[in-house]
Amino acid sequence: MTDEHAVIDGLQYSNWSRTTFEQMRAGGLDAVHVTVAYWEDTRELLGNLGRWNRRFAAHADLVVPVETADDIRAARRSDRTAILFGLQNCSPIGDDIDMVALLKRLNVHIMQLSYNNQSLICAGCFEDADPGISRFGRQVIREMNRVGMVVDMSHSAEFSTLEAIRLSERPVVVSHANPRSHHDTPRNKSEKVMRALAESGGLMGFSCYPFHLRSGSATTLEEFSEMIARTADVMGVKHLGIGTDLCRDQPVSVLQWMRNGRWSKVMDYGEGSEERPAWPDPLPWLADASDFPNIATGLRARGFDEDDVAALIGGNWLRFLDHGLPPAGSRLGPGAHGVDGAGGTGGGALD
Amino acid sequence: MTDEHAVIDGLQYSNWSRTTFEQMRAGGLDAVHVTVAYWEDTRELLGNLGRWNRRFAAHADLVVPVETADDIRAARRSDRTAILFGLQNCSPIGDDIDMVALLKRLNVHIMQLSYNNQSLICAGCFEDADPGISRFGRQVIREMNRVGMVVDMSHSAEFSTLEAIRLSERPVVVSHANPRSHHDTPRNKSEKVMRALAESGGLMGFSCYPFHLRSGSATTLEEFSEMIARTADVMGVKHLGIGTDLCRDQPVSVLQWMRNGRWSKVMDYGEGSEERPAWPDPLPWLADASDFPNIATGLRARGFDEDDVAALIGGNWLRFLDHGLPPAGSRLGPGAHGVDGAGGTGGGALD
Repeated sequence: MTDEHAVIDGLQYSNWSRTTFEQMRAGGLDAVHVTVAYWEDTRELLGNLGRWNRRFAAHADLVVPVETADDIRAARRSDRTAILFGLQNCSPIGDDIDMVALLKRLNVHIMQLSYNNQSLICAGCFEDADPGISRFGRQVIREMNRVGMVVDMSHSAEFSTLEAIRLSERPVVVSHANPRSHHDTPRNKSEKVMRALAESGGLMGFSCYPFHLRSGSATTLEEFSEMIARTADVMGVKHLGIGTDLCRDQPVSVLQWMRNGRWSKVMDYGEGSEERPAWPDPLPWLADASDFPNIATGLRARGFDEDDVAALIGGNWLRFLDHGLPPAGSRLGPGAHGVDGAGGTGGGALD
Repeated sequence: MTDEHAVIDGLQYSNWSRTTFEQMRAGGLDAVHVTVAYWEDTRELLGNLGRWNRRFAAHADLVVPVETADDIRAARRSDRTAILFGLQNCSPIGDDIDMVALLKRLNVHIMQLSYNNQSLICAGCFEDADPGISRFGRQVIREMNRVGMVVDMSHSAEFSTLEAIRLSERPVVVSHANPRSHHDTPRNKSEKVMRALAESGGLMGFSCYPFHLRSGSATTLEEFSEMIARTADVMGVKHLGIGTDLCRDQPVSVLQWMRNGRWSKVMDYGEGSEERPAWPDPLPWLADASDFPNIATGLRARGFDEDDVAALIGGNWLRFLDHGLPPAGSRLGPGAHGVDGAGGTGGGALD
């Protein structure tokens, strides 16, 4: 376990503004994994990344981009928040294996292999059937392993998740989800998945999105901390972090985009319903990112010692990223033995 | 069974030129279903359609576009070949349900739901696992049924194909494939699929691509005709047509595009192999489209009567298109009872 301190939120998708960045700072966040695409295609993603460049320029006193995990350390030293880009779907790579390396070069470090629905790679958690990882998907995982793009299975289906963990040569993350034993929904994770994740060196971030919690928006800090303690018994503290899934200041139209993308002609309510079509009320102890320190408070009250609290609120994420972000064959990456790190495969290379 | 004569090839993808169009005329073809995309995205498809507009302008004495099935009749009367656009994959609609109606408006009348690999809709025939039709896929089939875009399952996997036949309210086509009982490959169709296709009013076109035939490039016209006769015993003559899969004058780079798209970093040989990486030799009796009349000759020699021969070489295709191409609720389409034909679904419509 790392002794190094870092405070990291493993998932946010707010309506970014100086206000939300000031809230990150008020919450003492050294890094935030931010979603840069749900259903966007390649070009639309590039537009989103361009807008982030403008934000980095306009708010350079508050936020900096993450190229390597050390940028999180530098952000901490300079009292800023490091912004780690991630995709909640593989739509930005389309069917093009070469996009993985290009997007990594643009600091896209994490990619979910599916978002609720079937993707070109695997099943999402709301599909009836789950074929596991496709032919393209196997190549994508190998390429992500090579370039140092973390596989995230938060919104993927059970068998697909187990297969991704099995096929990936590098640890996988579930950046934002909770145990099904706490709240039984397709979006949360089974004990089988959690154990496979831990055994492979992966990490799960606990979600504060009310639909992922047994008591919804009324979930207390005590209940949340208790859930973490019970999960630590299953997975071990070092495989756990936080991924709040905070979506602040977003209009309902954004929620509808997340749920419906362009794929549905009828309203899909996702985890909501026709009676509850809108954003759930936020947890009272996590109205925005400035409340992040409440999580540490809750963990201490539940009896976690200071080392464990430090690990849970960011130390584990930092260690995971230290190993997850470098390309294969580089100093910190796997297979660091001087070769180019390209995964061995049959057949001749296509130029 | 129709008494109307029409000669139709249910699949070609040649390197289009005045020569290939002259071959169509020499072969007496009133219509050809041409592939306008394999892995292309929306914009790339539009480029391909634009190039077809140039061909229609430059070779107006030989080829005309198909907007409705009656255009095939008009082409026959004017000694030209009607060109019916089809997609061998759903990649041009991406994840956007609204693209179905727009592409139909651009005369894209047929779409395969997958091509060898997992798509956003269903599994391809070379995947290990087959989940059937995805959430998006169910909406796409409903929308294709509504606008009059024919579902083609030629390159799809077994369970996906059975599910598409079950879910589609309008008959489905397998434009180019052969029975597995003739040659057992994942690309050919099981008796279960063929029976389900026939029972639902669908149609299968026999392929002349050597990899789909037991004796490969050495397949004789007698063997081919015998395969058709045996399949007629299973499906009935009226559910059968021809889809030669002729790919004339195409360089190996096009074959590699069909097999690898952008999805593979290592060479995928599809139905070929590292030892046989290139196009197979064409059948001696079908070197190009001008040889199409040999098929009728073979069928007659096998004992089919003139009505059956006429049905097999195009009459069945014409009848199928008569019913398949009009929008739902129109004069010839299903549900022609004055409503708008939009499939009923739960939930409110998304604008």
